[in-house]
Amino acid sequence: MRASRYLIATQKETPADAEIISHQLMLRAGMIRKLAAGLYTWLPMGLRTLRKVERIVREEMDKSGAQEVLMPAVQPAELWQESGRWTQYGGELLRMNDRHGREFCFGPTHEEVITDLIRNEVKSYKELPANFYQIQTKFRDERRPRFGVMRAREFIMKDAYSFHLDAESLNETYQVMHRTYCSIFDRLGLDYRPVQADSGAIGGSASHEFHVLASSGEDDIVFSTESDYAANIEKAEAVAPAGERPSPAEQMKEVATPGQRTIDAIAAFLDIDATRTVKTLLVKAEEDENGKSGLVALILRGDHTLNEIKAENLPGVAEPLTMATDEEIKRVIGCEPGSIGPVNLPVPCIVDRSAAHLADFVCGANRDDYHLTGVNWDRDAALGRVEDLRNVVEGDPSPDGKGTLEIRRGIEVGHIFKLGNKYSKAMNATVLDENGKSVVMEMGCYGVGVSRIVAASIEQNHDDKGIIWPDAIAPFEVAIVTLNAHKSPTVAEAGEKLYEQLRQAGFDVLIDDRNERPGVKFADMELIGIPHRFVVSDRGLAAGTLEYKGRRDEDKQDIPVAEALPFLINASPRKGL
Amino acid sequence: MRASRYLIATQKETPADAEIISHQLMLRAGMIRKLAAGLYTWLPMGLRTLRKVERIVREEMDKSGAQEVLMPAVQPAELWQESGRWTQYGGELLRMNDRHGREFCFGPTHEEVITDLIRNEVKSYKELPANFYQIQTKFRDERRPRFGVMRAREFIMKDAYSFHLDAESLNETYQVMHRTYCSIFDRLGLDYRPVQADSGAIGGSASHEFHVLASSGEDDIVFSTESDYAANIEKAEAVAPAGERPSPAEQMKEVATPGQRTIDAIAAFLDIDATRTVKTLLVKAEEDENGKSGLVALILRGDHTLNEIKAENLPGVAEPLTMATDEEIKRVIGCEPGSIGPVNLPVPCIVDRSAAHLADFVCGANRDDYHLTGVNWDRDAALGRVEDLRNVVEGDPSPDGKGTLEIRRGIEVGHIFKLGNKYSKAMNATVLDENGKSVVMEMGCYGVGVSRIVAASIEQNHDDKGIIWPDAIAPFEVAIVTLNAHKSPTVAEAGEKLYEQLRQAGFDVLIDDRNERPGVKFADMELIGIPHRFVVSDRGLAAGTLEYKGRRDEDKQDIPVAEALPFLINASPRKGL
Repeated sequence: MRASRYLIATQKETPADAEIISHQLMLRAGMIRKLAAGLYTWLPMGLRTLRKVERIVREEMDKSGAQEVLMPAVQPAELWQESGRWTQYGGELLRMNDRHGREFCFGPTHEEVITDLIRNEVKSYKELPANFYQIQTKFRDERRPRFGVMRAREFIMKDAYSFHLDAESLNETYQVMHRTYCSIFDRLGLDYRPVQADSGAIGGSASHEFHVLASSGEDDIVFSTESDYAANIEKAEAVAPAGERPSPAEQMKEVATPGQRTIDAIAAFLDIDATRTVKTLLVKAEEDENGKSGLVALILRGDHTLNEIKAENLPGVAEPLTMATDEEIKRVIGCEPGSIGPVNLPVPCIVDRSAAHLADFVCGANRDDYHLTGVNWDRDAALGRVEDLRNVVEGDPSPDGKGTLEIRRGIEVGHIFKLGNKYSKAMNATVLDENGKSVVMEMGCYGVGVSRIVAASIEQNHDDKGIIWPDAIAPFEVAIVTLNAHKSPTVAEAGEKLYEQLRQAGFDVLIDDRNERPGVKFADMELIGIPHRFVVSDRGLAAGTLEYKGRRDEDKQDIPVAEALPFLINASPRKGL
Repeated sequence: MRASRYLIATQKETPADAEIISHQLMLRAGMIRKLAAGLYTWLPMGLRTLRKVERIVREEMDKSGAQEVLMPAVQPAELWQESGRWTQYGGELLRMNDRHGREFCFGPTHEEVITDLIRNEVKSYKELPANFYQIQTKFRDERRPRFGVMRAREFIMKDAYSFHLDAESLNETYQVMHRTYCSIFDRLGLDYRPVQADSGAIGGSASHEFHVLASSGEDDIVFSTESDYAANIEKAEAVAPAGERPSPAEQMKEVATPGQRTIDAIAAFLDIDATRTVKTLLVKAEEDENGKSGLVALILRGDHTLNEIKAENLPGVAEPLTMATDEEIKRVIGCEPGSIGPVNLPVPCIVDRSAAHLADFVCGANRDDYHLTGVNWDRDAALGRVEDLRNVVEGDPSPDGKGTLEIRRGIEVGHIFKLGNKYSKAMNATVLDENGKSVVMEMGCYGVGVSRIVAASIEQNHDDKGIIWPDAIAPFEVAIVTLNAHKSPTVAEAGEKLYEQLRQAGFDVLIDDRNERPGVKFADMELIGIPHRFVVSDRGLAAGTLEYKGRRDEDKQDIPVAEALPFLINASPRKGL
């Protein structure tokens, strides 16, 4: 491609409303432009990368045996009513009426449509398993779209849906998809981790997320220092501390703590470590047979944080997790939220494993402005149920017993899910098994955030000059910058020759033949993030050389003109070209 | 691809609600399935063809120098308000409100979005001309969607928009697009015609449609028998009859024609040919300076039909064309619509060229149940303005003077358009010219109906067994049908070997390894329309041969196993493979 005939829409200024680096750089490098909140046009430069991501996803999905389909973006309400999601799905579902007043939505996901298709098309176990995918524009009406294409309203997803006679078959395809996703992210040149994820809410039996590691990521993901254990923070298990709980050494005492309502305040006031305190959170309990629901106490060590997903997945706790109001606490316990504790608490307690291991601890006295010190389980307070309630913290032991946990930030770019029969049951999607018996199919679903990957890659690969693309998804692999070509026919000719040579060798080449100053061209090519750059100049040609610089290199190097192609082949991951 | 692991969703029965052959065959061949009115899922088999069409369109657009972008499907109302189309566009525009109540539409076209983008990005004439395209899902809320993907509500378009400093540059790009479209439809293997089209309504200065010829087409297109003149019927010029108008031979007479109100009735009643009559249509005239509008008479030869587009494009005629009501006619002329004529008509007349050439003709007497015979222009009625008002008919002389006109049916699959400054002016899209002066850009737009092409190709290429694909867009180029492979390891092995050999040679191969009867497999492969078929059987292998049949061939032929690949290469349009 010739830069002189291409929309190079670079910008010097960092756009004011772009909060994260990928959003800033995608705007500055001329990859995208905003049309409206959460709606972006992909300019030629950005679309090239997007299409390369799409192609890799498609090739790996095809290799896995999945079959590509294309379902309508606009979906009739009837199917969503059948699955129950027409009412469950919130404001993110963009609903509309057609000219005849019938209700539709712009699909954020396609479980209903594919389940409807397959229940009509597939009649026998012989046609299973089958896995269908599409790469498509989706819409999610985010309340607060931001971060550019990272959390846009209109975005491109690869979504796949598999159908099975039984859970074993689902498990096999799930494993194939896990491997396929690893191949995709390997080929994309990303530093990523597959992590266990919670599957509680959707009712499935297993789920993994794929995260691109980046300090700007919105999710906490957890790894073992010594094994391949990895989970997102919602799912990562906090194991019980080793050994027996220490024996009581102190007597329980009530102390006045006027105005001290937080763990930090109490620890400072009593001059103790927060690890020696417990905090008690009151949440709504599950409804009983009569439809009545009381409160239940969740008890954590003072320095720990509640994991809401773990809590709401527990029997006895209402879902979604609902904190008790101050009024409810006052009415049931008789004090303000900052003074609750497990001693003589009039509601059932669920105690986190770490809190259950404490002796001689401090807690609220269920009386405003008083706390208890030297409290011990069993002796002073009934221990009750012990569960994993908290978020892990760095240094916790790994749940597989190997090493300790580290926490990093990640950007979710893929998610695989065993759906089980949630949709197939609701929509009566059955096949006949070997015995001619009608069986509800098992389903899996598998998503990749295609447009989000572009932004995630930038979050992981950039410097103060701009984007640094992995070769596989760079809009162009090589830039040729000609200096003063408008005045030097030698430079112009050598540039053209190199351009043709590299193109014929199969490289995506951008020749910057614009009549701009060298500094402008260099800055643009670096901002755009093209992995390899050759400079063609009179001075170099006089010495028979071109100047080469890899985007991550500190230094330039002179390469004999004749060796440019072999050098590039060697410098590129596409060595087998 | 192995048929045993692929969704072969063929159907024997012709679906009841599919009116045209492409819709029937796309359903029967398992290419598409209906989700709701005008909304179709592309099954794997159909999507393969759709993607091939897309790829050819993309490659040719890239070759033309156009740059691919991707704009949001969902567009804010503000831009459409700026262009004026928010109110002009009718019920086909699918409108919606987002969660914050802001108005959006699902874009049926993207003039506003691209004009907004370019007015922000392009500041100087140096960056022009530029042509941007996208291949994207569009939505048009058809009142009565039908004919499958031929007139669906959701469909895939290639839409391109070019920007220019002046009309000359627009003209150059317009010619490039004309050639590009020819390359696209040539490569698609379609019998098509570019035809002149009317550009009046949208205000542009030129327009061509590209039609796939098919008897089921909804449009009439017109060709010369002896030149390359071609136009759609709206645009095709009806030239004046050769020679002078004959001199009057009869005297004008009023005859009673009780109850005879149509041309056919009058011609039968008077025992004359309809070519000797004229009919007079009254339509609304353009408003005068005071905002008042009267009527104007359009006068045609009795056997001719009014071309409404030509009529409404004429000065003096209100646009859109509006027929006078019976009441208006009664009030102004004093008779019923079936008895009007040009003699002493109290409104201005516009006379079609052919009607103007008549002598001794019959027309209404402006008095119920009476007609005039032997009427002659000038002598009996003022001739007034003579214009081209009618649709051409087969046998008319070609307007370029070469040959006569033929009329065929066509399916519009492409349209190129000089928009001029319609959008750029309304939206103030300007650049600075060489003198630093701000100039409103000229624009062109260029559409291809990507998904419609799939259906149009079938309308043109099918027989009673099913679809006949051009090689370039066949879902698979070759089918290998193995007979009895589940019992014959020799057949299974030979089939696999051929499969690998043809794939490695670059062919898209479907091996029908299903455990089905030969008749079922043959019928499916023919219904799906795969251009080349090899049959692998024990009997053939015993003789060292495979059976080959081209989809259009009458007869099968035996080919030595070793010659299958060279034979196929020779039989395929991809000879240079």
